[in-house]
Amino acid sequence: MGRQRDLNRSRERILASATKEFAAKGFAGARTRSIARRARINEQMIFHCFGNKAGLYRSVLDKELRHIATLLESREHMSFATHLATGFETLCDSHDQLRMWQWEALTDQRSELIAAEERRRFLKAEAAQLQRAKLRGNLPEDVDAGLMLIASIALRSIPLLLPQLAELVTGFQSSDPAFRRKWSRFLKTLGDRIGRSSALPRERASRSAPSRSRERGGERLRPNGVSGKRLGLSS
Amino acid sequence: MGRQRDLNRSRERILASATKEFAAKGFAGARTRSIARRARINEQMIFHCFGNKAGLYRSVLDKELRHIATLLESREHMSFATHLATGFETLCDSHDQLRMWQWEALTDQRSELIAAEERRRFLKAEAAQLQRAKLRGNLPEDVDAGLMLIASIALRSIPLLLPQLAELVTGFQSSDPAFRRKWSRFLKTLGDRIGRSSALPRERASRSAPSRSRERGGERLRPNGVSGKRLGLSS
Repeated sequence: MGRQRDLNRSRERILASATKEFAAKGFAGARTRSIARRARINEQMIFHCFGNKAGLYRSVLDKELRHIATLLESREHMSFATHLATGFETLCDSHDQLRMWQWEALTDQRSELIAAEERRRFLKAEAAQLQRAKLRGNLPEDVDAGLMLIASIALRSIPLLLPQLAELVTGFQSSDPAFRRKWSRFLKTLGDRIGRSSALPRERASRSAPSRSRERGGERLRPNGVSGKRLGLSS
Repeated sequence: MGRQRDLNRSRERILASATKEFAAKGFAGARTRSIARRARINEQMIFHCFGNKAGLYRSVLDKELRHIATLLESREHMSFATHLATGFETLCDSHDQLRMWQWEALTDQRSELIAAEERRRFLKAEAAQLQRAKLRGNLPEDVDAGLMLIASIALRSIPLLLPQLAELVTGFQSSDPAFRRKWSRFLKTLGDRIGRSSALPRERASRSAPSRSRERGGERLRPNGVSGKRLGLSS
């Protein structure tokens, strides 16, 4: 019992240390020796627990993905706008995984992606969530959920992907709470506009509808009768 | 005359070679020796023409920025949607500069940004262009032009910033022409929705307007009377 508990603790310490090392230097630049040192653990323990550096990398990603997957479940009924802003705030708390992806983009393009299947499964789950939002009328019908997922990741992660861009444009460091509030608010406004426009097929629909319904304004034709107001559009 | 022409040619060769080296390895990883070798030039020539590695880096960025600034001028009257899609297509032709920014984000966060002023000036010009689009009614009035610029850069660059994301979600490599067409079309749809929603203050406006104008639909209240159709919304 005690031995298993010690092993689990060591695993956790290694994972935490490896996350920092991979985020700081990427897969190629990371050294298991530094990871062991940071975790105050014998380097052999890493190989015992995770096989090799790639196994460790896979486990780090898997842990991060499971963590976000849990958060995602709790966001099932959020509007797209809130989802964007909340996603950005979550990334601000920790963007180690994002940095790992970014290192891959710069350095590991020709090698096989580690944990591709785990990532695909996670992304599929999030795309499915956007698909359900479409069915509820919270996202435009004619927009592909997968591409919308890519756009959503772009919008919530850009200040962390290119912090110098945020700073050059706004004068605030992207880690500044003032900038973060600004960007969250902006994502809400933008997300509302993208979500709100799902009411707009109205223009086509109203051509065949009796003029009576036109008089009442477009909102009535929003699927599910969810009004703009209920999606928090007047931010 | 001949000497000056030779010098200019050498400069151009060095700049082209340096762009590739900086994009591949970032500022810290780049070696003037490799740049000289790639340019088939004596390494001393680099110091003669650009002072040092930082001077060369600044010149590469400056050249790239001037190039995009020229493209930008020709896009003054594009709709936001077309602007997004065209911006993405330009990046697909060359994303060396984007990679340089990405390297900075990962490795040079604590050092001073090279060519900060040149970049700020360029971004200011693009934000001013979005501001003018707002005044023409092609972008929502209540959205900050600077933040919209950041969002626009996020949307047009994400498949190049995180190519593995695009591939995991869509099954296409982000360099695949099929993916590029898909993403361009998506950006047009999304950009139309963001631009089109600038007509939506209608909801508030129509409360005080006579019911007659409501019957005619929302488009009439778009600033400048620019109709959704004229912005190419029915793609």
